[in-house]
Amino acid sequence: VPIYAQDTAVVSIAEGRYGRTLSSHFNNPPGNINGGYGLAVCLRALAAEMQHPDPLVISATYLRPAHPGPVEIAVEKIRSGRRHSVGEARLVQNGAEALRVVATFTDLSGLTGRTHVALTPPVLPAPADCFDPNERLVLNPNSVRARTETRWPSAPAYITGNPSGDARAEFWLRLADDEDADVFALASLVDMAAPAVFELGEFSTTTVELTVHLRARPAPGWFACRVSTNFLIGGYHDEDFEMWDSTGQLVAQSRQLQLLVPPPPRPS
Amino acid sequence: VPIYAQDTAVVSIAEGRYGRTLSSHFNNPPGNINGGYGLAVCLRALAAEMQHPDPLVISATYLRPAHPGPVEIAVEKIRSGRRHSVGEARLVQNGAEALRVVATFTDLSGLTGRTHVALTPPVLPAPADCFDPNERLVLNPNSVRARTETRWPSAPAYITGNPSGDARAEFWLRLADDEDADVFALASLVDMAAPAVFELGEFSTTTVELTVHLRARPAPGWFACRVSTNFLIGGYHDEDFEMWDSTGQLVAQSRQLQLLVPPPPRPS
Repeated sequence: VPIYAQDTAVVSIAEGRYGRTLSSHFNNPPGNINGGYGLAVCLRALAAEMQHPDPLVISATYLRPAHPGPVEIAVEKIRSGRRHSVGEARLVQNGAEALRVVATFTDLSGLTGRTHVALTPPVLPAPADCFDPNERLVLNPNSVRARTETRWPSAPAYITGNPSGDARAEFWLRLADDEDADVFALASLVDMAAPAVFELGEFSTTTVELTVHLRARPAPGWFACRVSTNFLIGGYHDEDFEMWDSTGQLVAQSRQLQLLVPPPPRPS
Repeated sequence: VPIYAQDTAVVSIAEGRYGRTLSSHFNNPPGNINGGYGLAVCLRALAAEMQHPDPLVISATYLRPAHPGPVEIAVEKIRSGRRHSVGEARLVQNGAEALRVVATFTDLSGLTGRTHVALTPPVLPAPADCFDPNERLVLNPNSVRARTETRWPSAPAYITGNPSGDARAEFWLRLADDEDADVFALASLVDMAAPAVFELGEFSTTTVELTVHLRARPAPGWFACRVSTNFLIGGYHDEDFEMWDSTGQLVAQSRQLQLLVPPPPRPS
C-alpha cells in the first residue's frame, strides 16, 4: 500500500470512534504533524460514517499541535439527506482535542448542474523542464517536504535567501513516489506545499482554520497549483490555494487563516 | 436600540444555552431567514461564553432553512488559551438543528504583528453619486433587501433583465437606517448583498458552508465591497466577498460554497 494511503487509514474502535497511530512521515520541521495530514485522518473516519462518499466542503479548526503517536477520532453524524451528509470529527491525542472538523459530504460523480468557470489553470512548463527544490536539499525522510514533490518554473526567490515580497506562486505538486491523490489527499495537499508567506520572509506560521472545497474527483498525475497570501494584518494572514488536475479541471480550492509565530525550538 | 442590534441579541436560558425569537426583518424572498442573520445570532451566544471579545475566523454549516420564530442556541466551550478562545454553537428550531458554527475568538484591538496588504479597496464613486437599486423596487419591509442599503457605480445588468455573464462586482453596502456595523454585523453583511451569480442569470442559490475572516473592528459608515464567483461546477459555486471600511482597511473576507436550487414556492 502506498505510504499516504496507508498512513491515513483508520480502524473502528467502537460506535463512532476510530483510532490510528499518526506516522512520522508527514512531519513539519518542528516535529509536529502537518495539518493537512491530520485533516485527512479525520476525513477518513468521517467517510466511514457518512452516507455519501466524497467530502465537498470541509472546515478544520486547529486547537493544538499533534505529534506522531496514537490518536482517537470521535465522529458525530449531524445530518443525512438525499444530497448531503454532514458530520463532525474531533481528533484527540493524550486526552486533549487537537483538531475539530465539520464536513459536508456528497457524491461528486453525480453532479448534473450547470458549469461556468471564470479562471484558467496555471500555465506552467512541463514538470521535467521545471526546478525541483528538493534536489538541492538534504531532506529529513520523515518530513512533509520529502513526502511531496513540487516543480517550479524557476527557483523560488526565498530559496536563494532573497524573498521577493510577492506572496503569489504557481507550481506543480503531487505526493512522493508517484502516489496518485484521491479526494482525501487533495484536502491534505492544499496544506503541504511551501507557504506563500515564505516570499515575505516569514518562515514560521501556524494554521488557525482551514476551509477546503473539493469540486471533482482528481485525475491521476501532477496538479497545477496557484497560491497567494493577500492580507497579512497584525500577524494574521490568509492563504488561498487552487489545485487543477491533469485534465485541466479545478479539483480543490482552499483558504486558511494563519498566524505568524516565532519558530519553535527543534526537539533535541 | 437599532433594529439589527436588537434582532441579534440573545438571552441566557441556562448554562451554555441561549434563546431568542428570530425576527422577520431579515427574511430572504422565500420567507426563510437570511443565513448571515442566523450566523450573527450564533456569534452573539458564543461571545457570551468566550474569554476574547472578537470573532476572528468563523465556519458556518447550514443544515436546514430557519424561519422567523423561537430558536435555542447551545454553546460548547472547546478551548480557551492566552491568545484565542474557540467555541461551537448549534442553532436549533422546532427540535431540529438548522446551523452549526465553529468560531475562534481573539482581541482584534490588540494585534501587534506585521501588516502587508497586497490588494487595494474597490475604487467607487461617492455613494451619493451611485445607483440605488432599492429606489426602483417596491420592497417587502420584512426582507434583508429592505434592511440593507447598497450603492452601485451603475445599475447591475441583471436588474435590467440582461445578466452580464460576469459574476464580479464592486459596490457600497451598509445596514439600513444608518445603523453602524460591529464585527458581528460584518459576519452578516458578507451574506446580505445580491449574490454574484445573479449576473450568470441564476437567481436561486442556497448556502452549504460559509467561512468568514474578521480582520479588524470596522469604522462607522459605508463598506466598499468586492464580490466574485469564479467556479460554478455541476451546480455548486463559490462566492468570495471582501469588505473594506471607510478608513480603507480590509475588515472582513468571506467565502461560501453554495448550490443552485429551483426557486422554492412562496408561502401562501
